[in-house]
Amino acid sequence: MYKLILRNKCYSVKRLRNLCSSISGNKQDGTLFPKKEEFPYRHIGPRDSEIITMLDTLGFKSLDELTDKAVPMNIRLNKLLDIEEPVSEYELINRITEIAQRNQVWRSYIGMGYHNCCVPHTIMRNIFENPGWTTQYTPYQPEVAQGRLEGLLNYQTMVTDLTGLEVANASLLDEGTAAAEALSLCYRQNKRRKMLISNKLHPQTISVVETRLSSLGLEVEIVDVFQSDFSCRDIAGLLFQYPDTEGNVVDFSAISESAHNNGTLVCCATDLLSLTLLRPPSEFGADIAVGTSQRFGVPLGYGGPHAGFFACKQALVRLMPGRMIGVTRDAAGRDAYRLALQTREQHIRRDKATSNICTAQALLANMSAMFAVYYGPRGLKDIGTRVHNFTLVLHYGLKENGNKLTNKHFFDTIRLEPKDDIHTVRQKAIEKRINLRYYDDGSVSVALDETVTAQDINDLFYVFGCLKTFEEVSEDPEVHEMSINRSSFKRTSPYLTHPVFNIHHSETRLVRYMKTLENKDISLVHSMIPLGSCTMKLNSTTEMMPCSLKHFIDIHPFAPLDQSLGYNQLFAELEKDLCEITGYDKISFQPNSGAQGEYAGLRAIQCYHEARGNKHRDVCLIPVSAHGTNPASAQMAGMRVEPVKVKQDGSVDINDIKEKAEKFKNRLSCLMITYPSTNGVFEETIGDVCELIHRNGGQVYLDGANMNAQVGLCRPGDYGSDVSHLNLHKTFCIPHGGGGPGMGPIGVKSHLAPFLPGHPVVNPLGEHSKSYGVVSAAPFGSSAILPISWAYIKMMGPRGLRKATQVAILNANYMSKLLDSYYTTLFKSPQSTLVAHEFIIDVREFKKSANIEAADIAKRLMDYGFHAPTMSWPVAGTLMIEPTESEDKQELDRFCDALICIREEIQSIIDGKLDIRINPLKMAPHTQEQVISSSWERPYTREQAAFPAPFVRPETKIWPSVARIDDIYGDKHLVCTCPPILPEYNY
Amino acid sequence: MYKLILRNKCYSVKRLRNLCSSISGNKQDGTLFPKKEEFPYRHIGPRDSEIITMLDTLGFKSLDELTDKAVPMNIRLNKLLDIEEPVSEYELINRITEIAQRNQVWRSYIGMGYHNCCVPHTIMRNIFENPGWTTQYTPYQPEVAQGRLEGLLNYQTMVTDLTGLEVANASLLDEGTAAAEALSLCYRQNKRRKMLISNKLHPQTISVVETRLSSLGLEVEIVDVFQSDFSCRDIAGLLFQYPDTEGNVVDFSAISESAHNNGTLVCCATDLLSLTLLRPPSEFGADIAVGTSQRFGVPLGYGGPHAGFFACKQALVRLMPGRMIGVTRDAAGRDAYRLALQTREQHIRRDKATSNICTAQALLANMSAMFAVYYGPRGLKDIGTRVHNFTLVLHYGLKENGNKLTNKHFFDTIRLEPKDDIHTVRQKAIEKRINLRYYDDGSVSVALDETVTAQDINDLFYVFGCLKTFEEVSEDPEVHEMSINRSSFKRTSPYLTHPVFNIHHSETRLVRYMKTLENKDISLVHSMIPLGSCTMKLNSTTEMMPCSLKHFIDIHPFAPLDQSLGYNQLFAELEKDLCEITGYDKISFQPNSGAQGEYAGLRAIQCYHEARGNKHRDVCLIPVSAHGTNPASAQMAGMRVEPVKVKQDGSVDINDIKEKAEKFKNRLSCLMITYPSTNGVFEETIGDVCELIHRNGGQVYLDGANMNAQVGLCRPGDYGSDVSHLNLHKTFCIPHGGGGPGMGPIGVKSHLAPFLPGHPVVNPLGEHSKSYGVVSAAPFGSSAILPISWAYIKMMGPRGLRKATQVAILNANYMSKLLDSYYTTLFKSPQSTLVAHEFIIDVREFKKSANIEAADIAKRLMDYGFHAPTMSWPVAGTLMIEPTESEDKQELDRFCDALICIREEIQSIIDGKLDIRINPLKMAPHTQEQVISSSWERPYTREQAAFPAPFVRPETKIWPSVARIDDIYGDKHLVCTCPPILPEYNY
Repeated sequence: MYKLILRNKCYSVKRLRNLCSSISGNKQDGTLFPKKEEFPYRHIGPRDSEIITMLDTLGFKSLDELTDKAVPMNIRLNKLLDIEEPVSEYELINRITEIAQRNQVWRSYIGMGYHNCCVPHTIMRNIFENPGWTTQYTPYQPEVAQGRLEGLLNYQTMVTDLTGLEVANASLLDEGTAAAEALSLCYRQNKRRKMLISNKLHPQTISVVETRLSSLGLEVEIVDVFQSDFSCRDIAGLLFQYPDTEGNVVDFSAISESAHNNGTLVCCATDLLSLTLLRPPSEFGADIAVGTSQRFGVPLGYGGPHAGFFACKQALVRLMPGRMIGVTRDAAGRDAYRLALQTREQHIRRDKATSNICTAQALLANMSAMFAVYYGPRGLKDIGTRVHNFTLVLHYGLKENGNKLTNKHFFDTIRLEPKDDIHTVRQKAIEKRINLRYYDDGSVSVALDETVTAQDINDLFYVFGCLKTFEEVSEDPEVHEMSINRSSFKRTSPYLTHPVFNIHHSETRLVRYMKTLENKDISLVHSMIPLGSCTMKLNSTTEMMPCSLKHFIDIHPFAPLDQSLGYNQLFAELEKDLCEITGYDKISFQPNSGAQGEYAGLRAIQCYHEARGNKHRDVCLIPVSAHGTNPASAQMAGMRVEPVKVKQDGSVDINDIKEKAEKFKNRLSCLMITYPSTNGVFEETIGDVCELIHRNGGQVYLDGANMNAQVGLCRPGDYGSDVSHLNLHKTFCIPHGGGGPGMGPIGVKSHLAPFLPGHPVVNPLGEHSKSYGVVSAAPFGSSAILPISWAYIKMMGPRGLRKATQVAILNANYMSKLLDSYYTTLFKSPQSTLVAHEFIIDVREFKKSANIEAADIAKRLMDYGFHAPTMSWPVAGTLMIEPTESEDKQELDRFCDALICIREEIQSIIDGKLDIRINPLKMAPHTQEQVISSSWERPYTREQAAFPAPFVRPETKIWPSVARIDDIYGDKHLVCTCPPILPEYNY
Repeated sequence: MYKLILRNKCYSVKRLRNLCSSISGNKQDGTLFPKKEEFPYRHIGPRDSEIITMLDTLGFKSLDELTDKAVPMNIRLNKLLDIEEPVSEYELINRITEIAQRNQVWRSYIGMGYHNCCVPHTIMRNIFENPGWTTQYTPYQPEVAQGRLEGLLNYQTMVTDLTGLEVANASLLDEGTAAAEALSLCYRQNKRRKMLISNKLHPQTISVVETRLSSLGLEVEIVDVFQSDFSCRDIAGLLFQYPDTEGNVVDFSAISESAHNNGTLVCCATDLLSLTLLRPPSEFGADIAVGTSQRFGVPLGYGGPHAGFFACKQALVRLMPGRMIGVTRDAAGRDAYRLALQTREQHIRRDKATSNICTAQALLANMSAMFAVYYGPRGLKDIGTRVHNFTLVLHYGLKENGNKLTNKHFFDTIRLEPKDDIHTVRQKAIEKRINLRYYDDGSVSVALDETVTAQDINDLFYVFGCLKTFEEVSEDPEVHEMSINRSSFKRTSPYLTHPVFNIHHSETRLVRYMKTLENKDISLVHSMIPLGSCTMKLNSTTEMMPCSLKHFIDIHPFAPLDQSLGYNQLFAELEKDLCEITGYDKISFQPNSGAQGEYAGLRAIQCYHEARGNKHRDVCLIPVSAHGTNPASAQMAGMRVEPVKVKQDGSVDINDIKEKAEKFKNRLSCLMITYPSTNGVFEETIGDVCELIHRNGGQVYLDGANMNAQVGLCRPGDYGSDVSHLNLHKTFCIPHGGGGPGMGPIGVKSHLAPFLPGHPVVNPLGEHSKSYGVVSAAPFGSSAILPISWAYIKMMGPRGLRKATQVAILNANYMSKLLDSYYTTLFKSPQSTLVAHEFIIDVREFKKSANIEAADIAKRLMDYGFHAPTMSWPVAGTLMIEPTESEDKQELDRFCDALICIREEIQSIIDGKLDIRINPLKMAPHTQEQVISSSWERPYTREQAAFPAPFVRPETKIWPSVARIDDIYGDKHLVCTCPPILPEYNY
């Protein structure tokens, strides 16, 4: 057997202490008042003594010496970041609580797609506040992700049941982008370039759709849908809202039929709660339904994160954007779940894509699905009925009292022209701390939700000058005249009939169900998840705690700005710090994913050129090694993608850049480049490249995915980049949540600042700023998770952040070194012979010699209790490992040991000691069912299958819950809703 | 194979609906405004449709019909409880937050055993707020409890290391009771009846010791220990405090020597944080050390819960009270942990006991141990140094400025006679919202803690009229003149050298360590824990949430009452509700465990007799079937226990009661009785029994352990009881926490109210009340967990509570019925042929027929994923099952199926189909290591071992982490600190 990793060398205590103090990142107050452990000590995995050992392995004396060699000197930041000294975990909570309390929680009846709801406390605590759920990665390794896959399948089932459509995806970012995706699908399907959208959509939906479609060069017309004409057969899609933004419930059957007759697809933005009472969109012909599931158990959070949903007819399934969970079978022939149709960033179709979607809102979709599981069809209908009947009482009371009501049918939202002066209404609303939606024409709308009580209705009566009480009005039988149940809109079709929605209604049952799912999955609470390019680092409790503060989570995104002063302060402070870290001048927090950030950044470049009369500059240079999302985003931003060559050693071919930049000199819009490169290398030439692009009239978009290798050491804004997105869910500690939420704010140099996203309701650029498009439904994206990144920076301080980066680089180089004799690291800097913060090991040779592929190694790692590294990206057939700074030496050693043991198994195959077909790698991962079966007939032992290394202990073993997934079967037999439960499971 | 449980009968939907509405516990608002699911719907497990099926199985039409038969009519409460209608989960949090905010969080420098601390957020969230840790039962089944056993062993190791003593237990209730236990041990050891205790102990320690020892008839003298004389050789034990209550660090070496020379044991109350710098008590001769570990990562909580600690010399280990974790080996010969020396309530030596301790503070001890694991020796020493050095600066600054300082050596607390007028000092303190300790003589003391900052010192300087700043004073080298490090008290011995305290210092590591431990244990998040007499019901998130509110947790127990108005309101509301539920007139919240409640209740009776001139009434009648704690408590209260016979059918022999009551007519103090009986039966005669006792001059103490069978149906105060304790951790939803915290407040009729516990610092009976003893260190016990019970009652409402009781009775009877053909239910009511809320199955016959004992069945249940029921109590060789109302029919069916499958296995042994020695029961539980071993040579299959029923699925199986524990080996080789880590585990 290969010798496992050498352990600590012996140092004298004294020498260790001297060395430690020389590499410790934080200034010490001395021994007089020793600070209690600072947060960097908690966040950074390796102890200082371990750092010394690891540096020694690499032949360095200090972290600075290592980073001086690893990071090119010509781009280095030669000062400490100008951010605050570290705040302790204890102080931090006091400080953020004070900031939160500057927000004012008023009752919101604004609606517009955002509603108060009663988040079930047990879901909040056991999912949202539970690292077992929040620190999971996207379920690309389904054998150790069956729990969240089941949760997301429940989500899809819930969406298809309520909308009445046949398939749904596992969530999108929000309602606005889901609507844009719907119309993009229409275009993909029928290739027509014109869209009709209703003037009764939420304003932010209109803006997002306009922005997104216009940059694709598609035509969008805002219309009264009942006046629309499809007879020219040039309309790709029609989008309307049901109930519409003013609360009206209208019948779209005729218009849908007319659209269909002329080859136009019909898209419907809708509200899931209303569909518990209303006929679903499928029943009046919708081909696609979109919306948000926020009000299903997810707090407002000043606009996000929530899950957007997307459902469509079966016929359109292969055009559906985003991730979809499918049912397939495993190697043992049992049902198993996985991501169907492999919609993944690395797999998206580059510049052939019409969507750049990578992230979903997995954590929030899981919460919403669990909300439906907890309430079931009866409970949800009760909520819907309650909300609707309160609205009936409000409507009737106001009408009877002389206000002019404009809705004929409605679910929870009514619009009125008040009998009293609008200023009086507004004044009384302020007095009661009530937010309403005020239209420019003096009318007002009121949207009710599940938190509303009789007292709330009385307060609204007071605001509108109605003298009766809720009790008085509700006794009048006429109230029910306008009930949905007495109309043709009454829903008759059943929903949520699957057992999963009908058996987990006691808290005991739900808690056990959530725990069962959680325990099927590997997350950061178990072992390292060394996903190259994804930076799975510690998401500390202190960072997460502010996300549960009432004053952050109970704020409507369109609340007046003077009620959100806390958020305002948070944004300002975080912006200042992020600018200092990146060298940029301005940040936009609107993009709620990395891909959204790319799109927003490219649009800023585009608008900048346009504003200078250079609209024709549309060429975007992108190295062929780039993340697939880059060309997809460029294409979405209306650019023409020109690929740039990559040299044999993995570095960008600077000559090719030069050639292309000069060739397209007059049309050059920008270069899109990742730094350090997607191959995990700091290229020395980055400064020159940026200069070259600028010289040719272009802008530089630097993909911020690898910021974790730069913070405190170098800044994109310094060495020539004009704009970057920052994946806050990578470098800045927002947990991955099993595949979302993410956040992708962008930083820009000042010349691009005027071209950042605006918003039709609350404009982040200021009321008078000209808006250059809207990329998310909420003005500040997923605001509610920004405290995480704010807290991380505050607690790390300038030295802590720099040390984190240094240790991230150290950890990667240490692992690369340990694995050196077993696996080839594909790319290193030719100058330093070092990698950056991640590295690629090449396993392609084993395909020939042992019939072993990257996937076999990935699956075998599960038997060792590990999640696989990034597979086959950026180079097919390889594995990319990014340990991050949070993993300590012991964990790195364990992981390397696992890979070394696997290398030995490969050798045994090569040497003929293990069968080439039936061996522990090909058969991996091994389930309990297999190794505990009486009929074990494999040419290796059960122990070798299940406990292949000394550290894989029976008492702490992490098991895959299914055997290897059969992807091909799943793609052939696409099933995307919950399968029937077998009798033996059903209790 | 036996036929598994029959599933739901088919009912027509209409009939079901009618039946459901007839049994639904809550009044409905009708369909107009259907309430969202009320909390009773979440708390009570079975759905209404299941209830109908279960009633049908038993031959009843409604819950009322069942309970009319099960609960004797002559004691029934014929009205709805007069408590509030149910509050929703959402409203409840708003309401309790408002109450909490009536408490004012001032800076506390009061000390006296309670200190502010920075609770590590990751421990708070991942242990204290995690049902995987809070809902565990006491680790009596060690094979599925290795996680928390390891945590508690860490606790013991931490305590022994810091005190320097050889053994420690797994925690006691608080410092006061630990001190009383220490002196009781002295008495047990040398049989002398006189104790000397220092006048420099915390006042509450003195009070608790006086109360406890005086009722044992022991003599306690409060002395200046340096004046004490042991030469008469009549002193059992000496107790002093180090550092003492005024902060003095003094050398007890000489006095200890003198004590030892005269056969007196030396007990030292001490502070763990101070011991990071100070010579440990063992080094000046202490035989026993006690104290609280609160300041190790557990919030103040207005007095609790926290863990008290108890350490002693090896020679005294078998006299040590409370629970102790020991290392033993399992059936496979591997190290394993378990409760050593079986210190368990059912095993305590009845009236031969000198302690009635049952509960520890497991959850809090685990938190404190994890705090030490997270900080390690270096981190703890840093905290200690910081606190001490701040104190040095404060001391020097105040002294230099003309205040008179009285301490010669100190750690964190100093006492001074202020130069300014005391009223000025007090006024300035109030202005700064600072609490100090004010002595009657006009002096003041200040105790610092780890949260103190330079600004805090400046504020204290201001209060005492010192004009210099912290910075100025701290620069003066003279400050360090009085440093412990320059004194003979400086600690030189190492501590916490075990790896567990030295490798989990990053948050990533700690989170994984906590998760590894959590996942070894069965808790309510996995499956039902049907522990007879322990009522393991749902502990809902909403009930738990208030326990994390800053305004509840950051309040010092001796803060002025006008700062604790929120607690005051909470106590008042909870008292009102508990009085209504029990029929009593007054509640004392001081007893912080059930056993403490018993003791307090019996003392009240005793004091009542005494006040009426009946001091001679000292006979306490107790049925022989009573919980062992009952006689132990009676003995501790100084009573003479007279056992009462129990009849063949398990019921109390009323003739024997009559005979004894009359026999001891003139000496009768009370009867102590459990109702429904410990055998799980509602006895018809309870009212007569109470009357009989009263007629003979006695009082009735009704053990409240089985209140869960009575709430809303009958009330002890109505049918004749005078006093009961209420186990809030049973009936009223405080989670068991793996063996604590518990709460045992007592309810009394008004004539006993004046005799409830008082307190020397903050008297719950009012300032002017005469105190009749103190049973806990804190005036209101473990106040911080009272919101749990408050919330439960508020959310259930009168109908919900009654329905919960009815369903608890239904569930027990349903299970008893299902198991009828397989196991005999030992006791039923002869009248109704029903059981109450729990029942005993008799398995004694299988000892002879199959060599199978209750323990074999208990261990085999683990293979099915279940925690065993209560074993061999109240009847040896049987199992007592209490399902509670929170478990639904499916879970009850699963558990019964497991027992039925086991019965079949027993039958196979009887029939000779399974080996009598090597069979799945005798070999249970089965570990992964065993069933995955290549060398399986047992006469049954691996599948039969590991997956013995269809519902035990490989993908969700819960595994025991060790094989069957070898108790005898452990008792023979007692090891109570962490064993060395084997190399293969050490990474």
